[in-house]
Amino acid sequence: MTNGMNTEGVSIFDSTLRDGAQGKGISFSVEDKLQIARILDRLGVRYIEAGNPGSNPKDLAFFERASRMEFRHARLVSFGSTCRKGCAPETDRNLLAILQSGTEMCAVFGKCWRFHVDHVLETTEEENLRMIRESVRFLVAHGRRVIFDAEHFFDGFLDDRAFAMRAVQAAVEGGAETVCLCDTNGGVFPDDARHIVQYAVAHLPVPVAVHFHDDCGMAVANSVQSVSAGAKQVQGTLLGFGERCGNANLATIIANLQIKRGIPCIPQENIALLTRYAHELASVANVEVPSGAPYIGSHAFAHKAGMHADGVIKASRSFEHVDPFLVGNKRRFPTSEISGRAVVFARVKQILPELALHSEETERILGEIKRLEMDGYQFEGADASFELLVRRLMGLYTPYFKLDYYKIYSGAGVGEEAGASAIVKVRVGEEIQLMAGEGNGPVNALDIALRKALGLFYPVLNRVKLTDYKVRVLDGGSATASRVRVLITSTDGVSAFTTVGVSGDVVDASFQALQDSVEYLLLKTGACPHSPDCASE
Amino acid sequence: MTNGMNTEGVSIFDSTLRDGAQGKGISFSVEDKLQIARILDRLGVRYIEAGNPGSNPKDLAFFERASRMEFRHARLVSFGSTCRKGCAPETDRNLLAILQSGTEMCAVFGKCWRFHVDHVLETTEEENLRMIRESVRFLVAHGRRVIFDAEHFFDGFLDDRAFAMRAVQAAVEGGAETVCLCDTNGGVFPDDARHIVQYAVAHLPVPVAVHFHDDCGMAVANSVQSVSAGAKQVQGTLLGFGERCGNANLATIIANLQIKRGIPCIPQENIALLTRYAHELASVANVEVPSGAPYIGSHAFAHKAGMHADGVIKASRSFEHVDPFLVGNKRRFPTSEISGRAVVFARVKQILPELALHSEETERILGEIKRLEMDGYQFEGADASFELLVRRLMGLYTPYFKLDYYKIYSGAGVGEEAGASAIVKVRVGEEIQLMAGEGNGPVNALDIALRKALGLFYPVLNRVKLTDYKVRVLDGGSATASRVRVLITSTDGVSAFTTVGVSGDVVDASFQALQDSVEYLLLKTGACPHSPDCASE
Repeated sequence: MTNGMNTEGVSIFDSTLRDGAQGKGISFSVEDKLQIARILDRLGVRYIEAGNPGSNPKDLAFFERASRMEFRHARLVSFGSTCRKGCAPETDRNLLAILQSGTEMCAVFGKCWRFHVDHVLETTEEENLRMIRESVRFLVAHGRRVIFDAEHFFDGFLDDRAFAMRAVQAAVEGGAETVCLCDTNGGVFPDDARHIVQYAVAHLPVPVAVHFHDDCGMAVANSVQSVSAGAKQVQGTLLGFGERCGNANLATIIANLQIKRGIPCIPQENIALLTRYAHELASVANVEVPSGAPYIGSHAFAHKAGMHADGVIKASRSFEHVDPFLVGNKRRFPTSEISGRAVVFARVKQILPELALHSEETERILGEIKRLEMDGYQFEGADASFELLVRRLMGLYTPYFKLDYYKIYSGAGVGEEAGASAIVKVRVGEEIQLMAGEGNGPVNALDIALRKALGLFYPVLNRVKLTDYKVRVLDGGSATASRVRVLITSTDGVSAFTTVGVSGDVVDASFQALQDSVEYLLLKTGACPHSPDCASE
Repeated sequence: MTNGMNTEGVSIFDSTLRDGAQGKGISFSVEDKLQIARILDRLGVRYIEAGNPGSNPKDLAFFERASRMEFRHARLVSFGSTCRKGCAPETDRNLLAILQSGTEMCAVFGKCWRFHVDHVLETTEEENLRMIRESVRFLVAHGRRVIFDAEHFFDGFLDDRAFAMRAVQAAVEGGAETVCLCDTNGGVFPDDARHIVQYAVAHLPVPVAVHFHDDCGMAVANSVQSVSAGAKQVQGTLLGFGERCGNANLATIIANLQIKRGIPCIPQENIALLTRYAHELASVANVEVPSGAPYIGSHAFAHKAGMHADGVIKASRSFEHVDPFLVGNKRRFPTSEISGRAVVFARVKQILPELALHSEETERILGEIKRLEMDGYQFEGADASFELLVRRLMGLYTPYFKLDYYKIYSGAGVGEEAGASAIVKVRVGEEIQLMAGEGNGPVNALDIALRKALGLFYPVLNRVKLTDYKVRVLDGGSATASRVRVLITSTDGVSAFTTVGVSGDVVDASFQALQDSVEYLLLKTGACPHSPDCASE
């Protein structure tokens, strides 16, 4: 049901650096902004709205540095409001700052909702129209190209259509080359979005852009509907960052339009880089891409239900609306109690290629995984523990060490030594090593003692670093006697792997995960023990 | 532009416990599932799809326990597939498990897309129709009410309309009371959703439900559009958990339909509890509600841009599409110091009604809270610790006891005593009490020892029960030396309260939260110490 209206494409306008900076926990340095601009340019967006030089002094520094960068696809846009009421444009600080930013493209916002003009701006309609018209004209007279951001256009249109249309017409009279209809409060529904965009497209002599917020969870749908209704430009932020609930998510919109509707948004060869660039941008912004983010999330093509996994193995389109490969993502089969034997078997098979699906061994492995998952283990993500489990069950694993015991001591109060300490006693072959460690809490002390002891036999362990440590309480209801699940991620500097432990005791659960971390690394590096240099007990 | 078609309301069908369990990192215990069912029932959803008894043994245990619960609004639904090809329903393991679950309502899914029948099921259309018709008929004959989940209906309809319609008609012939059109792959666009739902509503003699996945980021919009097109039931999950990118987010849909379109979904008086119940459910599932989640997220009504904050202070609807109060959420001004002060001050004022906004004391309290929050504390849910903090800062608090020290011992291995032990030495006035405890891990041992010791002075403590214990790692990057935040929820049987502790040592963070829990209860009950009956050291 493509209407074919937009086969010439829509231009993508990314506001991560401006509206996106208003998202929760987002704070960009000038260096961050330069890096993000580079990523967006490589992806191939048409416009990068990079800041509001009039309200943020950091933004002027950015524009100054960015003016020396070469962009391949994108143009920078500076953003600001119209002149203030009662002011001439040529004396308005905001407009002068926009000129000073040096970008040819400018986005200028003005009021289109009578309620705002009456109660927030507190002026007359005539003055509002003058502010819009003269501000745009001033920038155009200085050689700028202007996108007029029609703030609250949808609310204003529903409230008083003629008022809203007069506002955007004033911008056109001033010389705006595009009018962007903004759902500033994010409250518009797709039906209304479609009708209003259709109306504006029919009544304006310039291209129409749209800018949606996600306060009703429908910003993507509103954008897609608007394109069907004739909008030629979509504003948003690549990962959906933005004020309140965020802006329209451009990664989703680009994939929806280009892959599923054949409407060009970015160079076709870059679609396969969408996942990679989205994660790069997230990394600069110091946030995680939500695992369930459409197209680009790590879980977007994960098949956890057994029947789905079985289907995908037979024919991928049976449970995938697009091929993950197209956006540079990949298919995943997390192991879990609801995933069927096919998924678990596919993972076991990677470890033991010779295993048959219908065999006693497979039965035993599946049964044991089910039992452990009932007990609170979770092998989704804990690949290393999964592999060790399978090898242990099949008798294909010789432990690299044996724990005699560990003990931990910790305390707080008057006259006590600060911190925690641990003792471990391990055996490697005939040799025994007793070692102590001190740390920031008992788990840290234990980790240090264990690796110190085993590092004497296996120097490769000195390369290992733990990079993440997660604790989940499994049944909060029994409070401090709750069972906990610990997930530990380790790296040897080359690859990362995750291990799991479950126990009623957080120290014990941590020890299980630490033990698996050590064993897995030794297994992968094919380590052989050698006698420690220093004396054992 | 409400079309008024659904003023009689739509019924909400929540699948958090079934489809939601397929979300990333989600793993429910039976106890979790019972708690979540209680929350959903209180919120007032009509149906709770609670599991697939045929594929998951834990689900049968759940249904057995849930059958003894009283529900006020909701009915439980068990879920499963039609009988297998070539099987009679009365010998089919899945259908028998559905019967065994004991629920009157059942959701049974069957294939509606020719591609799936040919390539995944690998059977004829006739056999597929028989499986659907006879499975539904079998359950109805056993007194069950059946919702037929028309798997891949939208893809199937676009591929071969007549084929898809014959499949759902077979379900109607079997006696299904509702047909649910499922967008199993999540690839449908709102325009198509609307047209296809309109067609199905016009051609089926039973009510139509819809079930969307969010793979194109449009599940909410598709659901809303479907209701406009005549759907009478919306399936989804309260927080959007689910396979791959998740299911349609019911919290958003309920608020969209009921507040913004006047279409009843849950009892009107419960709309104001939406935020609270959503966060309770997230807490049981041990996930965070995304801060930008529409309506219920902590940032959903946060005004970070200065101009927006100014506008909202003048007139809230200038930058809010609905009043946050309606859904039990609140307005936040994260970067505005003056407004930030107003929010925190409002909370402090509840504790110290005589405090003035512009005073040195207020300054000191706000400064200390800011410092502690930078350090990882979180007072948003920890009201009890917040109150103690304020009283301590104002010198309005005399501690009920003094800790001399605690020590913990724990270990594992050959010849060791199982479990952990703790010693605490506390003072109440002039008296000293030394006490030991044994427990399931060091934190549990410490909790037991502390309450045993103090219970001798304050018998009211024997009434206290810890009901929840949560550990969050604050900076995963430094692994086992990470700082952790512990939240403990306690109850004295009358009310529940939450306390917080932060430290690099999980035992120490837990001790802080335990100490606050004890102190807060003593404060609230106005306890006076009395000499213990048994001898102290």
